[in-house]
Amino acid sequence: MSQYTTRQNKLQQKLKDNQLDGFLVTQNVDIFYLTGSMQTGYLFIPVKGEAVFYVRRSVQRAQEESSCIVKALGSFRNFGETLKTDFPQVFESKHEPILATEFDVLPIQIFNRIQSIMPHVKWNDGSVFIREIRMIKSPDEISKIKIAANAVNQALETALGKLKVGISEVEWMSEIEYSLRLQGHVGLMRMRGFNQELVTGMVAAGISAAKPTYFDGPAGGEGLSPASPQGSGKNIIEKNVPILVDLGCCIDGYVIDQTRTVVIGELSEELVNAYQTSEQILKSTETLLKPGTICEDLYFNAVRLAEEAKLHEHFMGYGADQVKFLGHGIGLEIDEYPVLAKGFKYELQPGMVIAVEPKFTFPESGVVGIEDTYLITEDGFEKLSITRDGVIRIREN
Amino acid sequence: MSQYTTRQNKLQQKLKDNQLDGFLVTQNVDIFYLTGSMQTGYLFIPVKGEAVFYVRRSVQRAQEESSCIVKALGSFRNFGETLKTDFPQVFESKHEPILATEFDVLPIQIFNRIQSIMPHVKWNDGSVFIREIRMIKSPDEISKIKIAANAVNQALETALGKLKVGISEVEWMSEIEYSLRLQGHVGLMRMRGFNQELVTGMVAAGISAAKPTYFDGPAGGEGLSPASPQGSGKNIIEKNVPILVDLGCCIDGYVIDQTRTVVIGELSEELVNAYQTSEQILKSTETLLKPGTICEDLYFNAVRLAEEAKLHEHFMGYGADQVKFLGHGIGLEIDEYPVLAKGFKYELQPGMVIAVEPKFTFPESGVVGIEDTYLITEDGFEKLSITRDGVIRIREN
Repeated sequence: MSQYTTRQNKLQQKLKDNQLDGFLVTQNVDIFYLTGSMQTGYLFIPVKGEAVFYVRRSVQRAQEESSCIVKALGSFRNFGETLKTDFPQVFESKHEPILATEFDVLPIQIFNRIQSIMPHVKWNDGSVFIREIRMIKSPDEISKIKIAANAVNQALETALGKLKVGISEVEWMSEIEYSLRLQGHVGLMRMRGFNQELVTGMVAAGISAAKPTYFDGPAGGEGLSPASPQGSGKNIIEKNVPILVDLGCCIDGYVIDQTRTVVIGELSEELVNAYQTSEQILKSTETLLKPGTICEDLYFNAVRLAEEAKLHEHFMGYGADQVKFLGHGIGLEIDEYPVLAKGFKYELQPGMVIAVEPKFTFPESGVVGIEDTYLITEDGFEKLSITRDGVIRIREN
Repeated sequence: MSQYTTRQNKLQQKLKDNQLDGFLVTQNVDIFYLTGSMQTGYLFIPVKGEAVFYVRRSVQRAQEESSCIVKALGSFRNFGETLKTDFPQVFESKHEPILATEFDVLPIQIFNRIQSIMPHVKWNDGSVFIREIRMIKSPDEISKIKIAANAVNQALETALGKLKVGISEVEWMSEIEYSLRLQGHVGLMRMRGFNQELVTGMVAAGISAAKPTYFDGPAGGEGLSPASPQGSGKNIIEKNVPILVDLGCCIDGYVIDQTRTVVIGELSEELVNAYQTSEQILKSTETLLKPGTICEDLYFNAVRLAEEAKLHEHFMGYGADQVKFLGHGIGLEIDEYPVLAKGFKYELQPGMVIAVEPKFTFPESGVVGIEDTYLITEDGFEKLSITRDGVIRIREN
C-alpha cells in the first residue's frame, strides 16, 4: 500500500468517526500530501471506497506523478453530476450527504461555486482532520526534513565566511539564499495562515530584529519597506550587535526551521544572559519532549522559566507584540500542528516534528535566542537541526 | 489628499453605486493598497465618512506606516460591537447593513467568524471593486514598476555572462535570483489566485519548458520535484535548445513580468519561425494598445495571427494544457486585472499596466516567445520592459 493510500485511509477513518460521507480536498499542499501530485483540481475521498483526483491542470502530469485514479475535471458546471455518477453510494443515499472541506484555506468564492453545483450537500469544516493526520510524519517525510536541515546548516556555515561589518542584512541573506537555492530550495516556504508569507526566514541585526511586525512569530524584522514589512532589510550590520539568523528552506516540499544568534565581536552581558536563558529553556523543553507530554505544558514551562529569569517581559516578543507560543509543527508547511501554546491539548506522539524557539526581544538592542527542530520518538526525541549551538562569534574583520 | 485617501474614495463611490453600506477589507495586499501598511487586521471603509484600520499586529507599525486612523483590534469577539460604536450610521440604520468583503481570497473559516460577530449583516462579494480600482496605476505605482523592470533587465544581462552548456536551470536561475535579491526583490511575487505561487518566474530549457503544469501560464517547467512542479528544475542546459527566461521580481511591492528566449548556439528553423511569429503578435498587439480597445479583442487578434501562421496548436501551451489568454494586468500582484482573454470586456484605459506574452510550445523541443509589460497612456502605450528583444544568442563556450 502506498503512503498516499495510508494517508487517505486515515482520513476515511476520521470521516467515519465524525459521520461524514466524504471529503473534497481543495488545497495544493493537502492534495500533494494525499496524492503525491500538486496539480490543480479536487480530490474526492468518500468515507468508503477509492478516491478520485479530478484534475484541471495538468491531467498528464497528475497521471505521471500520482498513483491515484486521475480523471480530467472537465467543465466545473458538470462536476456535481460527475461526482453523483462516480460516487452513487455517497450522493444517492437516503440522507443528504454531509461532506467536509478545508474551511481554513478555501476562499469563499470557490466554496460558493462548489455549493452551487452540489445544492443538496451539507458542508463541515474538515481542516482539523487533515492537520491532525499531517502532524505525524512518516520515515520518508522525516528523511526529507533532515535533508532540509543539512542544507540550512551548510548555507549558514558557508555564509558565515562572508559576514562582515558594513554588509546589509539583505546582502548577507542573499548569500544564504543563493546557497539554499543551489541545494534545491523551492524558493519559498509554504504557510497555511491567511496573509502570512515566508521566503527563507530572516537575518536581522540589532534593533531591526526587535521591530514588531504582522508576522506570526516572536521576532519581527524591519523588512525592505512597508510593502514587505518583515525579515531582512537594508539595515547595515555593525559590530557587537546580536544578529538573529532564523532560517529555513523547502526541499522536495519539506521545510526546516532553526535560529542561531550571531555576533561580530561581543554581546552585552544582558544579551548573553538572555541568550543563555533561551538555551536553558531549550534544554528544559528537551527533558519534556517525549510521548505523552501535553503541548501547552511546554509553553507554560517556558513561560515559568522566563519569569524565574525575570525576562518574561522580553519573552517571545516585547510588550503588545509578544506572541503566545513556544514552537510549532513543521512539515510541508511552516505553521503545522501541533502548536506549543495554551489551548493545545494534544499529547506529543512519535512522528511529530516541532520547532522550539525560545527568544528574547530587547527593543533597544535586538533579539537573541535559539531554535531547533525535533522529531518525537518512542522514548524521547531526535534533534533534526545539526547546527552547532551557542552564540556564534565572528572576529571583527 | 494622500493617494490612499483617493483610493478609499474610489471604493466608496463603488459602494454607493452598488447600494452597499461599507467594505471590510481583509487581505494583506488590499490593505496595503488602501492604507500604505501591510500589518494584519481589518480596514473598515463606510460608504460615507472616514475609514478605520483595526490592527491586530503590529499597531505601532501600522501607526508609523499609515496615515489612516489606526486602532488596536483587541478582542475579535468584541469587534462587532466596536464597529457598531464607531460607525452608528452604518450599523444602526433602518435596514440591515449590507457590507462587502473579498470573497475571492478570504477563507471560509475567517468569514464564518466575522459573520458570527456581526449577525445582522448581509455580505456581498466586493473583490471586483478593489480589482477594478487597482487596474489603474498612479504615477507612483508606475515608477515602482519601472524600478522592477530595470532590476530584471540588470539581473538578466549579468546572468547571461554565467550561462554555459552544462549548467542546470536552477543553478542559472540562482544567479538571476541572487542579483534580483541584491537589488531589493522581496523574495517572491504575490499572486491572488488560490493555490498559485511564484518566486521569480522560470528558466527552463528545451522540453522541460514544454512540460505542462498546474501553473496558470502558457509555459510549464519541470520544476524541482512533484512538490514544486513548475519553473526551473535540475535539467541541464544544452546547446541549440530554446531557453525560456520568464522573469519577474517584486520591489517595494510592485512586480514586473517579462520573457526572453535565449539559446547557446542556434535554434531550429521551426523555432525561429515560431519566435518571429511571437514578435509579430507582440507588434500587432502594440498597434491596438490604446484607450478604447476591448481586452478580449487583443486575445482574439493574437489567436487569429497564430492561426494564420498555422501555429495555433502550439499557441500559449499545447493541446489540453493550452491557456486561453494573451496577457494580464500586473501591479502589487502578478495576476491583476484586466486579463486579455475571452469574456474580459474592459476597455483599455490610461494607467493600466499589462504584460503581453505570446508564446509557442513544442512538446518535442521547447517553448519560445516574448513578453513585455506595457503602460496604457492617453494616446497609446509606453513599454516598461527595457530588455533588448530578439532571440538572445550566446556563443557556445
